[in-house]
Amino acid sequence: MPSLPNEISLDPLDWDAFRATAHVALDEAIEFLRGVGERPVWQPVPEQTRRLLAEPVPRLGSSLDEVYEEFRKLILPYATGNIHPRFFGWVHGAGLTNGIIAEMLAATMNANCGGRDHGAIYVEKAVISWCKELFEFPSESSGLLVSGTSMANLIGICVARNARKVGNIRNDGLKSYPNSLVAYTSSEAHESVARALEILGMGTSSLRKIPVCADFTMDLEALREAIEADRGKKLEPFCVVGSAGTVNTGAIDPLDELASLCAREGLWFHVDGAFGALGYFTNALRPRLKGLERADSLAFDFHKWAQVQYDAGCILVRKGDVHRAAFSMRPAYLKSMSRGLAAGENWPCDFGPELSRSFRALKVWFAFKELGVQKIAKVIDQNCEQARYLERRISREPSLELLVPVSLNIVCFRFRQTGFDANSLDKLNADIVADIQEAGIAAPSTTRVRDRLAIRVNITNHRARRVDFDALIDAILSRGRECVASASAK
Amino acid sequence: MPSLPNEISLDPLDWDAFRATAHVALDEAIEFLRGVGERPVWQPVPEQTRRLLAEPVPRLGSSLDEVYEEFRKLILPYATGNIHPRFFGWVHGAGLTNGIIAEMLAATMNANCGGRDHGAIYVEKAVISWCKELFEFPSESSGLLVSGTSMANLIGICVARNARKVGNIRNDGLKSYPNSLVAYTSSEAHESVARALEILGMGTSSLRKIPVCADFTMDLEALREAIEADRGKKLEPFCVVGSAGTVNTGAIDPLDELASLCAREGLWFHVDGAFGALGYFTNALRPRLKGLERADSLAFDFHKWAQVQYDAGCILVRKGDVHRAAFSMRPAYLKSMSRGLAAGENWPCDFGPELSRSFRALKVWFAFKELGVQKIAKVIDQNCEQARYLERRISREPSLELLVPVSLNIVCFRFRQTGFDANSLDKLNADIVADIQEAGIAAPSTTRVRDRLAIRVNITNHRARRVDFDALIDAILSRGRECVASASAK
Repeated sequence: MPSLPNEISLDPLDWDAFRATAHVALDEAIEFLRGVGERPVWQPVPEQTRRLLAEPVPRLGSSLDEVYEEFRKLILPYATGNIHPRFFGWVHGAGLTNGIIAEMLAATMNANCGGRDHGAIYVEKAVISWCKELFEFPSESSGLLVSGTSMANLIGICVARNARKVGNIRNDGLKSYPNSLVAYTSSEAHESVARALEILGMGTSSLRKIPVCADFTMDLEALREAIEADRGKKLEPFCVVGSAGTVNTGAIDPLDELASLCAREGLWFHVDGAFGALGYFTNALRPRLKGLERADSLAFDFHKWAQVQYDAGCILVRKGDVHRAAFSMRPAYLKSMSRGLAAGENWPCDFGPELSRSFRALKVWFAFKELGVQKIAKVIDQNCEQARYLERRISREPSLELLVPVSLNIVCFRFRQTGFDANSLDKLNADIVADIQEAGIAAPSTTRVRDRLAIRVNITNHRARRVDFDALIDAILSRGRECVASASAK
Repeated sequence: MPSLPNEISLDPLDWDAFRATAHVALDEAIEFLRGVGERPVWQPVPEQTRRLLAEPVPRLGSSLDEVYEEFRKLILPYATGNIHPRFFGWVHGAGLTNGIIAEMLAATMNANCGGRDHGAIYVEKAVISWCKELFEFPSESSGLLVSGTSMANLIGICVARNARKVGNIRNDGLKSYPNSLVAYTSSEAHESVARALEILGMGTSSLRKIPVCADFTMDLEALREAIEADRGKKLEPFCVVGSAGTVNTGAIDPLDELASLCAREGLWFHVDGAFGALGYFTNALRPRLKGLERADSLAFDFHKWAQVQYDAGCILVRKGDVHRAAFSMRPAYLKSMSRGLAAGENWPCDFGPELSRSFRALKVWFAFKELGVQKIAKVIDQNCEQARYLERRISREPSLELLVPVSLNIVCFRFRQTGFDANSLDKLNADIVADIQEAGIAAPSTTRVRDRLAIRVNITNHRARRVDFDALIDAILSRGRECVASASAK
């Protein structure tokens, strides 16, 4: 339709020029990804680049080509590194090539998935339904895609809190609870559990961090005692958070026993399965995760072991009506209609705090459709096998010390050197990690295990090969020896 | 590097075939967007399509071409509609063509923007710094990109709650507050404010919905009385939430007076500026938004009036240290290092509940860089002018009744008919809206204004032209007359 002379739009004046730039960008993006293994895993953003990025707000625009060129020079070379075959830091997936297409298509449709009746809503419903099927949740359960497990933990524990009290908790707030609520998790649980309790108004003092056994899983006896002690103090236990794969060591809490204990004690059972839950897709790991399927709520990510692009996590809740009761709130401007664009009863905004929601379901859909669960599972098994390979290599190197037996896909170890005290060894290992990151060779991270600094290798990377682990070990050994030599020379 | 025979990756076996499919998808996406105005604004997802989407989880994969073809048939035709020039429902932006490129590039880099030291972090820093400049926030203020204003409101009010109490609130929770906290907002405020208070453990009973004046802005006198009354009851007022553009009518609360009142009374001043805050970019609207720049925290969206792709919102907090104190929590596995990939002091995860965060800053960066603030502002002015145009057209039509004088970019009106009672008129107007949505002509939404169902036209759409509003009015008049005739014939 023709516009009046004074009307503008933000669409390209020249669509062909836009198309040409878009295709160039796509080609270069694909080449960038294809050649990722030949470049450094990471490089710091140079001071000059930081300065250029810290420009004042652009009052006037630039051509798309200029903007793209700036992106290419200032931003693209400085990715986090998790797309690289030798990225082993934290728990990041490597991303999928089909995710590039999915995100480009989602951006074209530009759906707001807070609610209403349109295609994206049915794609998210399908993805949630697949998750219910995969984790053997009942048909009356519910789910929501979220940014990740931090948000999923917040939602799960919020539902647990609200479900605790009969009556109008949403109206009356925590002050209407006769006794203070208490939650339980292991000392190895992810910080997002404590943060959820803070946000929810209960404070971290309402969280008991139960000690772990030698294998870093929650000590059930200590849990039982803590619950009893709290009841004795007129506190009200309401929730146990089990970990299906802890962030430090990959430990899996005794989920089946926790599920039974929660059922017996009338407690909500929430499982933080950020990456580990997806082990349920493989025959090798499923038996170790037994009990997961009995959780009242389950939090996990697609952007870790399912390799979906950031961000994509999920919360499942066994009782869909309880989940909805914790969040649904529909003023007149959000009322469902019986037909038209505002149709549909269960909108995603009824199940979480967000009303504006991207179409992140599409990249999950593309991932599962193209790969199938079997191929995702195969990479999970491969990563666990690689962790065992790394463990074997470490055990053969006198300069390396394994700090925790490998339980899943995480390997905690360190370089050792006689004559170095505890602090010097910590510093030595921190230096080794920073050095090989800065050299662009590989990117493990660090953590503390039994109060010692550990080199931590996490493997949720479909691009990693055995040769990459060999390269990692070689680099650690060589850098370690150099550090020691330089320290001795001083 | 060569892989061992038994090692797989999820990368394409044939990169050229992948590239070809990606380019086809890109071309079709661009054509889809270019021709959007010639297609229906919305169409329901057919029953058959819903059934096909509701398939069991794919255990085995498919070729990328098959998956893409399924997307093209089952998903692409059923977009929400907000990319269309005649979408006027709720408050959705229309999206930008450069957003397609930005999202494709962000997916390639696949950054997790929870923290650490890489390019995406500096892009988000730049975007936040632009926002501080645009809204005249001080240099010590902080900010975070989030999914949207619902999340930004939650974060802002969480900081307000925590800032209220000296001492270790994060440890002790709400039970350590001597008096119950109370927040204030107008009866026209967005539901996410109430929901935030629920999630934060205070309950909606801790929120006073202050009556509005004839122009739907908060009644300051009523606010003062409510604060006084609560203090008399030993409750503790802590926060006032002002709206910069209410969802129903676009009303702007008296922000400057609210800022002064909060300063005087020692209350946190949070502004929900979901779409309206961006009016601050234009010379015409800035004076009406005065006081916004004095907020303790400001929530707003880029995916509304800045037309950025879903989802992209922001929270700014005047005192960065108070913001950080509400969320930062760094266990060993997230410790900052002095150098390497784990360097950098202020990580985004220190300012909100999310540790997994997509690189949504890139699409905001592309939008501001290509368009410049001036062009975004021009569309905002154009949309307000279009609202006034629509108001004039309505005032000339005897069958239409304006329900609220246009204040910004939202027009609430309805079809009227003598002899119809209140309920019949409500139903008539709901039918008109559903009919023209289903016919694919235009997509306004509905709300209730002074207990009457209103046809609500929101204009945050850079593709809309005057002719589109003419088409909307024509459709409403013609459909209204048909409905009346059919009702009379019964």
